[in-house]
Amino acid sequence: MLRIITQRTEARSELRRICDRTHDDQVTHKESTVREVLQAVKRQGDRALLHYTSEFDRRDLKSDDLRVSGSELDAAYQQVPKELLDAIQLACRQVEAFHRQRVPKSWVHFGENEVVLGKRYTPVDRAGIYVPGGQASYPSTVIMNAIPAKVAKVPRIIMVTPPGSAENGISPAVLVAAQEAGVEEIYRVGGAQAIAALAYGTETIPKVDIITGPGNIYVTLAKKLVYGTVGIDSLAGPSEVLIIADKSANPVYVAADMLAQAEHDQMAASILLTDDSVLARKVVDEVERQLVDHPRRLLTEKAIAHYGLVVVVESLEVAAELSNEFAPEHLELEVVDPWGLLDKIRHAGAIFLGSSTPEAVGDYLAGPNHTLPTSGAARYASALTVETFLKHSSLVQYSQTALEKVAGAIEALALAEGLHSHAESVRLRMRGNQELP
Amino acid sequence: MLRIITQRTEARSELRRICDRTHDDQVTHKESTVREVLQAVKRQGDRALLHYTSEFDRRDLKSDDLRVSGSELDAAYQQVPKELLDAIQLACRQVEAFHRQRVPKSWVHFGENEVVLGKRYTPVDRAGIYVPGGQASYPSTVIMNAIPAKVAKVPRIIMVTPPGSAENGISPAVLVAAQEAGVEEIYRVGGAQAIAALAYGTETIPKVDIITGPGNIYVTLAKKLVYGTVGIDSLAGPSEVLIIADKSANPVYVAADMLAQAEHDQMAASILLTDDSVLARKVVDEVERQLVDHPRRLLTEKAIAHYGLVVVVESLEVAAELSNEFAPEHLELEVVDPWGLLDKIRHAGAIFLGSSTPEAVGDYLAGPNHTLPTSGAARYASALTVETFLKHSSLVQYSQTALEKVAGAIEALALAEGLHSHAESVRLRMRGNQELP
Repeated sequence: MLRIITQRTEARSELRRICDRTHDDQVTHKESTVREVLQAVKRQGDRALLHYTSEFDRRDLKSDDLRVSGSELDAAYQQVPKELLDAIQLACRQVEAFHRQRVPKSWVHFGENEVVLGKRYTPVDRAGIYVPGGQASYPSTVIMNAIPAKVAKVPRIIMVTPPGSAENGISPAVLVAAQEAGVEEIYRVGGAQAIAALAYGTETIPKVDIITGPGNIYVTLAKKLVYGTVGIDSLAGPSEVLIIADKSANPVYVAADMLAQAEHDQMAASILLTDDSVLARKVVDEVERQLVDHPRRLLTEKAIAHYGLVVVVESLEVAAELSNEFAPEHLELEVVDPWGLLDKIRHAGAIFLGSSTPEAVGDYLAGPNHTLPTSGAARYASALTVETFLKHSSLVQYSQTALEKVAGAIEALALAEGLHSHAESVRLRMRGNQELP
Repeated sequence: MLRIITQRTEARSELRRICDRTHDDQVTHKESTVREVLQAVKRQGDRALLHYTSEFDRRDLKSDDLRVSGSELDAAYQQVPKELLDAIQLACRQVEAFHRQRVPKSWVHFGENEVVLGKRYTPVDRAGIYVPGGQASYPSTVIMNAIPAKVAKVPRIIMVTPPGSAENGISPAVLVAAQEAGVEEIYRVGGAQAIAALAYGTETIPKVDIITGPGNIYVTLAKKLVYGTVGIDSLAGPSEVLIIADKSANPVYVAADMLAQAEHDQMAASILLTDDSVLARKVVDEVERQLVDHPRRLLTEKAIAHYGLVVVVESLEVAAELSNEFAPEHLELEVVDPWGLLDKIRHAGAIFLGSSTPEAVGDYLAGPNHTLPTSGAARYASALTVETFLKHSSLVQYSQTALEKVAGAIEALALAEGLHSHAESVRLRMRGNQELP
C-alpha cells in the first residue's frame, strides 16, 4: 500500500504532487460560500453568527449563550483527569520557557551627528485564536497559540471554538488548557462565521487585530479573505512529515512516526527518504502491521495510500536536496549524524534530530511551536512565534545640524522621484525658523 | 479646502472614513481581471506575459527583451547626475547599516536532562522585488526592498519593473539604485502579470519564494491572490501621515510635511492633530500657500480635499488616543517633548520625533525601511525588515532518557486528542530497541 520509489525523476514528480495536494480548483466553489458568510456577519453581526451556527453546527444558541461562562470553565476542571491536567501544565511551562527565549526588545541608538534611531516593539491590542472542534479536541492547539500571545503581553486574548454537540459541548480539556494558558474570554462559535466575527466584530464578539490558529478549508479560506482587514498567522494546510533515515534507524519507530502524521487527516502526508533499501522494505511492512489495530484505520490508510511515499536514494545528500525541494512542515533526521546532515537542510518548519525525538515530542511539549508552515510554505515562512503578536515602530530623530548634512542628498532623491514637497519639507527647514509672511 | 474639526465624535468618524478609504467594493471588479491574468501567465508563461505587456504597457517585446541587459545597466550610470549617484550610495549605506542591527541569529541551547532546543535562521532561496513605474520613478523603493534581502543573504534577488515607454524605457535612476543595492537580475515587466511570473515562474522569469514591494491596486490584488503559493511582504495601500503638533510646531514645516504625503497619490491621507487652534489655522493657510506653485497641484489638492484633515483636540493625550485608533503608517511628533508623548503611542509604522525630522528623512535615507503598514495595518504589522527574507526552523533533540521523563505526559495529551499513533510513537521507543517480529 505504501509505495517504494527508487527512480529519481519519479520521486521528484511524486513529491511535487504531494506538495501541491491542496492547490486544487475545488477551492473556488467553497470560496463563494465563505464570502457570503463573511458579508452576512459583517452586516448583521450576531444575527448571522447564530444563523450559521444553527445551520452548520446544528446548535440553536442566543447571543447570551455565545460566551463560555465562568461556571462552565470551573466545571471543566472536574472533568479532566489529574494526569492530563499535569501534562497540560507541563506543556504550558515548557512552551512558555521556549517562547521566552530571544523575544525582540525595543532599542534606541544615539548615533554620532545628533541622529537617534531605534525600533520599538509593542503587542497587538487584541488577538483572536481559532481552535478547531469537530471530530477531535485539541488542547495542544490552545497552548501553542495562547502562550506566545501571552508572552507578547497581548492585553486581550479572545478564543473561539465550535460549540460541539448539545450533549457534550466544548471539550473540557480545551477549556482547561485555555485557562492554564491564560485565556479568559472564550466564545462557542466556529467555521468561517467565527473568523468573520473576529475580523469585523459583532455585538457580542470583539473585533481583533490578528487571527491565529488552524482550521478546516472554510476557516483557511476565510482567513485568507479577511487578511488585510486583520493580520493572520498563516494559511494552514494538511499536516506532513518527511523523515530522512539511514540504516541506523529503527523501522518500528519510523513507521509509528509516519502513522502519527497520517492519522491526523486523510490529506496528511508521510514521506520517508532513505539510502537503505532494506529499511525501506521493513518500514512498509511495519506500517501495515501497526495499521491492523489502529482505531482510525480507515482514515489513516487513506492518507498513507494517497500521500504516503518511500523513496530510496543513493545518498543522504540526495535526500537532503529532495527534502529542500519539498520544504516539509516537520522533518525528522533519524540518521547516525543528524547534526552533520542538518547543515545540508535549507527549508523545514521544525527539525527533529535523532532516533529518540519523535515528532510527537514537539507536537505537545518540547517547547517550540507546533503551528508550522505547510505545503511548501517553509520555503518562506516559519513557526508561529511571539513576534506574530508583536509589531514594531521605527524611531527616527534628527537634529537641525544632522538634517543639514543630508539635506542635499534628500533633495536629489526627491527631485529624481518628482516629489516636490518632499524636497520642500527639507529645504524650508534649512531656511531656519521662518514665520508666516 | 483643508477642513478643521473640533468636535470629537465628528473627528472619530472622519478618521474612520479616511482609514477605510480603500475598502470599497470596486475592488471585486478588478479582482476578476487579475484572476484572469494570473491564470493565463500560470498556464502560458512568457506568451501571456508578452501579451499583457503589449495590452497594458503598449510595448511589444519578445522573451529575449525581458531581461535588462548588462550594457543597458552600464549605460544607466552615464545618465545619472553625480549628486544623485552620491545620494543613492549614501541611502544604500545608511539603510544597510540600520538593517544590519539586531538581525536574528541561529541559536542552540543544550539544556539539562539531555534536551537540545534551538532556532535556525536561513534566507529564502529567491526573492522577487516589485518596483512600480508609471508616472514616476522610485529608486528609493529599490533600495528599501533590495537591501534587506541582501543583508538576509538571499542568494538570488529578482527585480521586476514596468518597461516604460519605447523612448525612455526604465528610469536610469532605478537601474543604478538596483546595482548599488546589489540586484543583478532585472526584468521589464509590471502589473499583475509580473506578480504572476514571480509566483509561478515562466520560461524567462524564475519562480521566487517571496514577493515584496508596493504597486497599484492590480499589483496589490495579485499579491493577495498568490499569497500562499509564495510569501508576500504586505498589502500596501495609499500612503498616509498623521502629525501630532503643539504650539511649538512650525506651521510652515507641518504644511510641507502634509503636502509631501498628499503629492504621492490622490488617495494619500494627511492628518494633523493639534491642541493649538492658532496653529491649526496657520497650517491650513500655509497649505494653501504652498499649493499655489506646486508642480502636482491638481493631484495634491484632490488628496488634501478628500483625505486631508485637521483636528483640534483638548490635549496631546487625546491626540495620542485618536492616533492609536487610526494606527498611521507615518507618525510625526512635532511637540516640545516628543519622547514623553511616545510613551502614549501604541500603533504606528514609523515615528518621526521633533521638528527637524520630516518624514522625507525616513523616506530616503535615515535607515529604517519606508515600506510600512497602511490603512490601519500598523495595529498588527510592521515595516519590511531583514526578517521578511528569513525564516527559521525549530530544532529539537531528546535523548532516550529525556524522552522517558515526558513519555507519560505525551501519552496523556495524545490520548485526550484521540491520536493513537502519537502515543504509540513514544510508547514503542520506551520498549527499547526492539526489532521486527
